[in-house]
Amino acid sequence: MPVHLDASDPDFDSRFTTLLHAKREDSPEVDDAVAAIIADVRARGDAALIALTERFDRLVLTPETLRFSAEEIERHCAAVDDADREALSLAAERIRAYHARQMPEDARWTDREGASLGWRWSAVSAAGLYVPGGLASYPSSVLMNAIPAKVAGVGRLAIAVPTPDGVVNPLVMLAAKIAGVDEIYRIGGAQAIAALAYGTESVAPVDKITGPGNAYVAAAKRRVFGRVGIDMIAGPSEILVIADADNDPDWIALDLLSQAEHDESAQSILITPDADFGRAVAKAVDARLQTLERRAIAGASWRDFGAIITVRDLAEAARLADRIAPEHLELCVADPEALADRITHAGAIFLGQWTPEAIGDYVGGPNHVLPTARSARFSSGLSVMDFLKRTTMARMTPEALRAVGPAAERLARSESLEAHGLSVAARLDRLNR
Amino acid sequence: MPVHLDASDPDFDSRFTTLLHAKREDSPEVDDAVAAIIADVRARGDAALIALTERFDRLVLTPETLRFSAEEIERHCAAVDDADREALSLAAERIRAYHARQMPEDARWTDREGASLGWRWSAVSAAGLYVPGGLASYPSSVLMNAIPAKVAGVGRLAIAVPTPDGVVNPLVMLAAKIAGVDEIYRIGGAQAIAALAYGTESVAPVDKITGPGNAYVAAAKRRVFGRVGIDMIAGPSEILVIADADNDPDWIALDLLSQAEHDESAQSILITPDADFGRAVAKAVDARLQTLERRAIAGASWRDFGAIITVRDLAEAARLADRIAPEHLELCVADPEALADRITHAGAIFLGQWTPEAIGDYVGGPNHVLPTARSARFSSGLSVMDFLKRTTMARMTPEALRAVGPAAERLARSESLEAHGLSVAARLDRLNR
Repeated sequence: MPVHLDASDPDFDSRFTTLLHAKREDSPEVDDAVAAIIADVRARGDAALIALTERFDRLVLTPETLRFSAEEIERHCAAVDDADREALSLAAERIRAYHARQMPEDARWTDREGASLGWRWSAVSAAGLYVPGGLASYPSSVLMNAIPAKVAGVGRLAIAVPTPDGVVNPLVMLAAKIAGVDEIYRIGGAQAIAALAYGTESVAPVDKITGPGNAYVAAAKRRVFGRVGIDMIAGPSEILVIADADNDPDWIALDLLSQAEHDESAQSILITPDADFGRAVAKAVDARLQTLERRAIAGASWRDFGAIITVRDLAEAARLADRIAPEHLELCVADPEALADRITHAGAIFLGQWTPEAIGDYVGGPNHVLPTARSARFSSGLSVMDFLKRTTMARMTPEALRAVGPAAERLARSESLEAHGLSVAARLDRLNR
Repeated sequence: MPVHLDASDPDFDSRFTTLLHAKREDSPEVDDAVAAIIADVRARGDAALIALTERFDRLVLTPETLRFSAEEIERHCAAVDDADREALSLAAERIRAYHARQMPEDARWTDREGASLGWRWSAVSAAGLYVPGGLASYPSSVLMNAIPAKVAGVGRLAIAVPTPDGVVNPLVMLAAKIAGVDEIYRIGGAQAIAALAYGTESVAPVDKITGPGNAYVAAAKRRVFGRVGIDMIAGPSEILVIADADNDPDWIALDLLSQAEHDESAQSILITPDADFGRAVAKAVDARLQTLERRAIAGASWRDFGAIITVRDLAEAARLADRIAPEHLELCVADPEALADRITHAGAIFLGQWTPEAIGDYVGGPNHVLPTARSARFSSGLSVMDFLKRTTMARMTPEALRAVGPAAERLARSESLEAHGLSVAARLDRLNR
């Protein structure tokens, strides 16, 4: 049974706080193992990759077969049926159109003192995208990571995807091809992250690594951070649905279950001003759990971390939503735009009952890589910005230096940085001569 | 003696690679100590802060004196002389004007299928800024961190600044006041980071922590990352100057020394197409090192990590600059804009001989918190973006769902996520009824 809370109960606040801080993730202690794997790849390169792939993926590779050949990729792509191909293409087109609008603009202007100031954006030269193997090998995630990189202008985009026992997901291959990925390696785990960060004889290093992965992949990304850029370390998925009584309880139940089925650590929360509606949704969830393919996973998530919260009004719902800072926020109310305006912290908002969160996972256009574990308080979903960096520009004229240089000299002196001050003073001396 | 390299030498590439990967930083093993400090602050709150401040800063505080009172701040600010006050105000005004232009815009549009898509930006609710104590207590860094936060719209901005033996830097207080900082705590080290991240009885927690610090502060920031957002972990400062022979060697020497004087681990590199000019700069550096106040630090940095590289032409200089990906790049050549266009990776570019890098440290306008250690390949300097996060928005109509829903269903099925597919199918069923 998920927890049922009522915001008007006297102990609500402490129970809500407990819900907020429930530890949903086991963090197995893998860091030492990961450190050893990274050191091995740095020391032995391809030989380490091959040995580790044989050990973890039961797959014997050579330096020549670490990377998929163009023919292999074509062969796997040809195995995808037309309906899947069309669905992937539609998703890619919509994701590309959305992310193209995110491209920021360069700026340059001259200020009152005559200084020319501005910035310019440029793409990361090379990026690596990790794609998990097995059950969590999602072609949609390939699109969501690779398309923003290509829209940003990343020159070289490499994928690492493990193929345990040699099993390849053709849809992953096709998604990579549609997104314009340049290289695909059949390597996984911490060894793949190490190869992308440091390079081996057969894998050229990249500047930025993104993409989801298990505890080993996450620990490896943390370790190579600094050497390369990384995206966020994602936690289990979450959804908060705020729904009034004017909804089909079964629709809302399915929306809650579509997070719960990801992972036993996922969290689905419903906030409603109508306690009866809340009970109806709980009943609909139980009914769907009878038949759902992933009912074991979804049922455990709903039982352990699910919650239904009754509130007095939507204003109270908005306040609680900001404290939850959910990854996904679905607003199934009469005026979802007005409610969205009252909420500050959320990774993605899905407005109205015709926008189930699953649309956002595939074909909405916005990215499905989003901040989890309340990090929407301070971070954003994946975007083209993750594959761009900004260089600031400044050009002083003699007149501008005369106007602002003395203040710089003064501040340098106050910070006991004499050479800083002298580098300005030497130029001002010339101007005043 | 700094290393002298000539790009036309046969062993240049290996020597340049050695220079690129020189380990410039000692990383003392402080992580265990930091973990214990964080646990102590989480467990004991103010009592831990007070005990640790007595131990590390030789300062006895109470819950009431952890935070500077408004009167104390006023008193310290009143001690600043007028010239310093005016210099700080000018710097603040220019930094504010530059960062105000960085504010990104919300977007919302309706696509061909009738879906309403977009995103909106919002500020982090509360941010904490760490300011080192002692020698590295720079008022300019207060401005560079606090102003972007306030421009972004951060509601609550707290500073933690240790005051060893009770010594307060009045310029830090004034910079905080000018920047609009809301709270100032006299705490430092890992304990300050823990207090900002987790909160104590007297320190409300924040959502994002920025600002420089020593190895303890850096390790604590790494540890609280995820609980709160952090800015980059900065390494020692660096400058690359590309200068032709048409420059005053003394100016270029001072620019190189203005990085070298920061830290024995700082790195200053000159690239020039004129070997004679390179030798003249080396001589000018040596002359300035006779008298510079911080000659011990600057001399060690220049001796151990400095370099002068002779190139055949500016095209070669641009290629090497991209491999260095410098934090600061000064272009003292006849056409600095043209050279800047050939270089992709740099944190900040200073164009022309009238733009010494020190201008950027104080009064240029762009931020002086910039990516070090080649991370300009994948990251950017501090900006208003660091205090903002983006929420994506999607609203489907029945027609839009009819157009794109089937593809989402199909992809959900291919990923074995049945509830995802059902949440779309249930709505499509209603439409098709």
